[in-house]
Amino acid sequence: MPITPYVALDLQQLEKNVRGMTNKLTLQGIEHWPHVKTHKSIELAKFEIECGAKGITCATLQEATVMAKGGINNILLAYPMVGVEKCQQFVQLAKLANIRTIVDSLQGAEQLSNAATNENLIIDIYIAIDYGAHREGIQLEDLESFALKIKKYTGLNIIGVFTYAGTIYQYTTEPEIRKAAKAEADLLLLCAQRLRAIGIDIQRTSGGSTLSSFYAEELKGITESRAGNFIFGDMNAIYAGIYTPKDCALTIRTSVVSIPIKGYATVDAGTKTLTSDQSAEAGYGYIVEEPNIKLVKLNEEHGYLRYDPETIELKIGDVLNIIPNHSCVIPNLTNKIYALNNNELDHIIIPNARY
Amino acid sequence: MPITPYVALDLQQLEKNVRGMTNKLTLQGIEHWPHVKTHKSIELAKFEIECGAKGITCATLQEATVMAKGGINNILLAYPMVGVEKCQQFVQLAKLANIRTIVDSLQGAEQLSNAATNENLIIDIYIAIDYGAHREGIQLEDLESFALKIKKYTGLNIIGVFTYAGTIYQYTTEPEIRKAAKAEADLLLLCAQRLRAIGIDIQRTSGGSTLSSFYAEELKGITESRAGNFIFGDMNAIYAGIYTPKDCALTIRTSVVSIPIKGYATVDAGTKTLTSDQSAEAGYGYIVEEPNIKLVKLNEEHGYLRYDPETIELKIGDVLNIIPNHSCVIPNLTNKIYALNNNELDHIIIPNARY
Repeated sequence: MPITPYVALDLQQLEKNVRGMTNKLTLQGIEHWPHVKTHKSIELAKFEIECGAKGITCATLQEATVMAKGGINNILLAYPMVGVEKCQQFVQLAKLANIRTIVDSLQGAEQLSNAATNENLIIDIYIAIDYGAHREGIQLEDLESFALKIKKYTGLNIIGVFTYAGTIYQYTTEPEIRKAAKAEADLLLLCAQRLRAIGIDIQRTSGGSTLSSFYAEELKGITESRAGNFIFGDMNAIYAGIYTPKDCALTIRTSVVSIPIKGYATVDAGTKTLTSDQSAEAGYGYIVEEPNIKLVKLNEEHGYLRYDPETIELKIGDVLNIIPNHSCVIPNLTNKIYALNNNELDHIIIPNARY
Repeated sequence: MPITPYVALDLQQLEKNVRGMTNKLTLQGIEHWPHVKTHKSIELAKFEIECGAKGITCATLQEATVMAKGGINNILLAYPMVGVEKCQQFVQLAKLANIRTIVDSLQGAEQLSNAATNENLIIDIYIAIDYGAHREGIQLEDLESFALKIKKYTGLNIIGVFTYAGTIYQYTTEPEIRKAAKAEADLLLLCAQRLRAIGIDIQRTSGGSTLSSFYAEELKGITESRAGNFIFGDMNAIYAGIYTPKDCALTIRTSVVSIPIKGYATVDAGTKTLTSDQSAEAGYGYIVEEPNIKLVKLNEEHGYLRYDPETIELKIGDVLNIIPNHSCVIPNLTNKIYALNNNELDHIIIPNARY
């Protein structure tokens, strides 16, 4: 095994998570378009497709480029393309793969239209709707007028509506999450209906997150969902009540390197391994072997453990497994994910689309 | 220029920062051993040495390995080596370069001693002292007894004492920071004196951080300082009063990609570019072009800007420069740093020691 810290991935649990999510969505007639920002790996994206995903979702042009060159055909780039260079690069990518993106501004639409028209290509786009987080998307009251303006641009073909209901992550109980998921699907279906009423042929309704997709029956009616985090699980999924620690496929293996005073130990995983991402509860991760050991603080290469030395014994060199607060940021920090088959090293997975 | 987001480095300001810090330390007779965790680049480490640094400091065995193979000779690995594999790898590295490390446990010392003895090598070590953060280091009352135990291990040669006074980062006024820097030097000199008194030949006293090294006259008497962050600067240095925005050599170039409602814009830099590291004041970075635009929240690839639309105009596609809260985490997130000479792309710097 490698020296610590390193990222370990349980292949048995990974498969359970992927098949579990795909089946939930498929049962409701919803296509699974998993978000690969979580793992950034061509191998894992292909595994998700093998397990039934109909395409993948990317967060950046860089990710989409790596995935298209890696042989993946159906890609939704869930990010507005803005800027002449980005739009040109996106259009070049559309020659390699069936790739679509989202639009929420006239400026972005115009640049993408110019790039597509210059290459005699038609780019499939979704109109992005602001669900209330004010991160991207147009306002509901502008839907028809915006879509009619976009419809005039050459080289663009409106195929769907899109939203990211990130506000769902404020909820932690099943009824609240179910209600939010239902509201998300309702909004997408309403927008599709409103656009069809003015003659725009909306075929696709794209929503979803790990939380809403876990309760896929509430999303029924939309065409596709873009869960990402589900593949690994993390403390966010645990605090939301949809995963338990044993459902988490990805952990960080770390060693105790110092015990300066009783009850204070230091491990070799810090922000450059775990990031400083917070979660719903205090701390920077969950110690699988002994949850009563708290990871209270991080420096770049140091994690600060606090525990009761009367009841817990730790020794220099002890190896611990940490479930991170947010697994989507972990593969972005490493060149290698160590895939374990029944706890033995099977092979190394590369997060190819790491920037 | 590349598509956004990307990391830009002003070469003129970089040189000012490096020469400024080296001169401050050299004037006080203190050797500069800059911490390369900040940039992870062989090129920048060599530049620091060209400007007068006597060696470099690394945070991980991986960093030290890359730097030694890159041709740098004097390396302090400021991390306790623990575990048979790490100690063996460290000892192999000692064949390539003049490399030393810190010790704060008998277990680590024994493993390093075994590895060194097996290879007939002598490893220079520093005794690490806990300055109060309880991250690593032995307690002051154990100093002599611990050192005498370590002295018995074959293959290890105690050359110095070491501390990391990270507690200095709680201070924001010059008198407080100066007092903390003086206290740090005093502690190291006291420890050296106590060990000399029992017959251990302490030649080196290693301390320092960007904050204490900025007031190098307070550190006078120690042999070396390990500032890291000074090379780039960041909001932490600004809030501590030692840098202004114009002193910061490293910025993140980002584009406005969405303006969902008035006064709410989104840029294409998120936690995967900036990390979620916090600073002394609210927000995730400083917008150089217009400090009244606040970066209030990050998702992975989205930064949320808030501003007064009555007084500030932002357009889709506008490019902004962000000074990050904490520059030491930025090169760890990218394959390329774009070095600018008078604001024109000069060349690309690779953070080679990225994990």
